[in-house]
Amino acid sequence: MSFSADVVTLFPELFPGPLGASVIGRGLSEGLWSLRTTQIRDFATDRHRTVDDTPAGGGAGMVLRADILARAIDAVSPPDDPRPRLLMSPRGTPLEQKRVRALAAGPGAVIVCGRFEGVDQRVIEARGLEEVSIGDYVLAGGEVAAMVLLEAVVRLIPGVLGASASEIEESFEDGLLEYPHYTRPALFEDREIPSVLVSGDHGRIARWRRAEAEALTRARRPDLLIDRSSPKAG
Amino acid sequence: MSFSADVVTLFPELFPGPLGASVIGRGLSEGLWSLRTTQIRDFATDRHRTVDDTPAGGGAGMVLRADILARAIDAVSPPDDPRPRLLMSPRGTPLEQKRVRALAAGPGAVIVCGRFEGVDQRVIEARGLEEVSIGDYVLAGGEVAAMVLLEAVVRLIPGVLGASASEIEESFEDGLLEYPHYTRPALFEDREIPSVLVSGDHGRIARWRRAEAEALTRARRPDLLIDRSSPKAG
Repeated sequence: MSFSADVVTLFPELFPGPLGASVIGRGLSEGLWSLRTTQIRDFATDRHRTVDDTPAGGGAGMVLRADILARAIDAVSPPDDPRPRLLMSPRGTPLEQKRVRALAAGPGAVIVCGRFEGVDQRVIEARGLEEVSIGDYVLAGGEVAAMVLLEAVVRLIPGVLGASASEIEESFEDGLLEYPHYTRPALFEDREIPSVLVSGDHGRIARWRRAEAEALTRARRPDLLIDRSSPKAG
Repeated sequence: MSFSADVVTLFPELFPGPLGASVIGRGLSEGLWSLRTTQIRDFATDRHRTVDDTPAGGGAGMVLRADILARAIDAVSPPDDPRPRLLMSPRGTPLEQKRVRALAAGPGAVIVCGRFEGVDQRVIEARGLEEVSIGDYVLAGGEVAAMVLLEAVVRLIPGVLGASASEIEESFEDGLLEYPHYTRPALFEDREIPSVLVSGDHGRIARWRRAEAEALTRARRPDLLIDRSSPKAG
């Protein structure tokens, strides 16, 4: 069974968009994963197809209605759906590579994209939506965030990157940022490739790369090293 | 002068993509910001338009060549370009709302999208590329990450969201996650809107929202509270 993604959105026409390109898009054409979009507006009940209303208690912006969004979710995800129901939201749990790996190993995901000021809290609770954040910044809506999540997940689905690529050492896979890369030409604007990399000594190369990755992580992301040294839940 | 974005990529056809929709796309049509893409492959020198080569020192994957990428960057960004040159990379500084605001107040950005295993370190140094990460996960390439960055930045450009929307209280803008939202109907599947929000007492509503935002932040993102209580550089 392949990974099945349902995206619930006010902008279904944006999909697959970037997810239709490169290895991610090839995986889609080859059936390694599937993508279905649902237009929330189709579940509105008035002739203007209204999906939002003003916030209870006042304030700027508009709030996506619980009843209409619930109907859209129910249309694609029955109560016994084994897939997690995610809501892309800056209030959510930050997405990390560990969660990406877990999602890629599962049956798929129902991804709800918010717009406007927010989503009525009651539909989040009633439908068990798990709020997921792709980072500490604010977007205009959840659509590009959903693309980020799907691209990260789909590239880990077996067959998408090809066999050899799965062995690639990468940032976060071992808790460190990646060491610097070099390729031909040997000389670029008076800058040489570090001599250790052209030494042919594989032990030295591995040690150099490890040391560079550790130094880079220490300099840029000491928080990742703290996470490694202290036991963490999950 | 409007915000000028240059995206250097192997997939220019993905742009504007999602950035052509909603308020972000309207801002583009109205000239509140501009977007130009540059195909890195146009700067290859062989008949196969090769842009990558095997990593020095061995290993899986391919590395984007420094000389070819430098030519692509130089074609859109002269040495005295006042815009920051960003490289979307999981090794980079994590993007935060504060940086988004700074970018939105500036002249624009040159955004380089990596693909393959990585980018030759020498072009990063020689062209002063600032590595920026949108989160602790690995993507297939930098294109969707560039869209995230641009969407976050462009929505802050005056005129894009409209006057009233700029007053919206949002996650991270005051260092807290956002309080829960509610709207009509008053009753959704036996769930009521919290009575304080329909009390009409604006002081109580403001205090309730603040307390909810603080409780949510404490429960989900204690790291944000730690950041607030300790002085930080930058």
